[in-house]
Amino acid sequence: MHKNYPKILLQIINSFKRFPGVGNKTAERYAFQLLQWSQDELIDLSDYLKTLKEKAKQCPDCGCLTEAERCQFCENADRNQKILCIVASPRDVFSIEQTKLFRGIYQVIEHLISPIDQRSSEKIDLQRLFFQIEKRQVEEVILAFDSTLEGDATALFLKQHLEKYSLKTSRLALGIPMGSSLDFIDENTLARAFMGRQLF
Amino acid sequence: MHKNYPKILLQIINSFKRFPGVGNKTAERYAFQLLQWSQDELIDLSDYLKTLKEKAKQCPDCGCLTEAERCQFCENADRNQKILCIVASPRDVFSIEQTKLFRGIYQVIEHLISPIDQRSSEKIDLQRLFFQIEKRQVEEVILAFDSTLEGDATALFLKQHLEKYSLKTSRLALGIPMGSSLDFIDENTLARAFMGRQLF
Repeated sequence: MHKNYPKILLQIINSFKRFPGVGNKTAERYAFQLLQWSQDELIDLSDYLKTLKEKAKQCPDCGCLTEAERCQFCENADRNQKILCIVASPRDVFSIEQTKLFRGIYQVIEHLISPIDQRSSEKIDLQRLFFQIEKRQVEEVILAFDSTLEGDATALFLKQHLEKYSLKTSRLALGIPMGSSLDFIDENTLARAFMGRQLF
Repeated sequence: MHKNYPKILLQIINSFKRFPGVGNKTAERYAFQLLQWSQDELIDLSDYLKTLKEKAKQCPDCGCLTEAERCQFCENADRNQKILCIVASPRDVFSIEQTKLFRGIYQVIEHLISPIDQRSSEKIDLQRLFFQIEKRQVEEVILAFDSTLEGDATALFLKQHLEKYSLKTSRLALGIPMGSSLDFIDENTLARAFMGRQLF
């Protein structure tokens, strides 16, 4: 950042640079775009930011985002409290809800384990997870993590720590994404799709 | 947008989607990133947005951004008031200043002419431009526009309307960008670089 921008623009640019994948050029473009907005539009966004954390809280039980005190999943008696889907972030919950396939409850663990960071497993609140499993008498656990090194490490870690409960435990299926051509699939994904092939 | 996000997140996502090149997915990623920020950081950005237009005004004479009443260029007696660089946006001024090659003054015209929009030339405030040229007794004009259809159309339009002043008028040189390999240059750029070749 060597340009002689007014200080307020630099402050906004530095804030935007904290967004994932946003560098100097992009942050500058966003900041100059804001100059085209009306003052009312700027005040709207300003107010949203100020009230964000108050209006989108995390449920104290499961960590899902909620506008109320407790979330729509923990509060909903129609949902099966004995099937627990463990996800890494509150955002994943919305993606899974969109499939309309899951009618159980969630637990957000907030962190995936990074195999190169020895202490990263300490960030996972196992006590809260154990408490939920015991309180709700959970019988089945779905580990819905990324298919990455971090997702694999976390799934393995949780599987080991959940062994004492004799739960039915599953992970999301690996395979070809819908609409993909085999040409574009890497060999590991193809191998997993082969191994997981289903009767047709 | 079909996901059942809390309303405050939807509002923020919709605001971010107004940034150039930002679609649903990116806006969602930014909004969820904000949830990781501390309340103090959110309030800082919130305050920046609210005061942006007050702290980064446009100079009433030339349209450059300024924190004071008038800009550092119009106010600076060391700058040559007889050489006027015409740019499309306040942002271009900072890029040109960074080259440290120009010591004249600027005029921001805010719009480029879109050849497919018949009426777009009406958005250019010719009267303000004429007024500046006459008041400062400008002798030389540099048209520093994009090398696009819009930039070309605007340069041509201004050249015609400035003919009555018998000014020395130039546009930015076309050629090979620094550090580029010929392999990656399109043939039109290469042709212009050829035509504009300089004694070595």
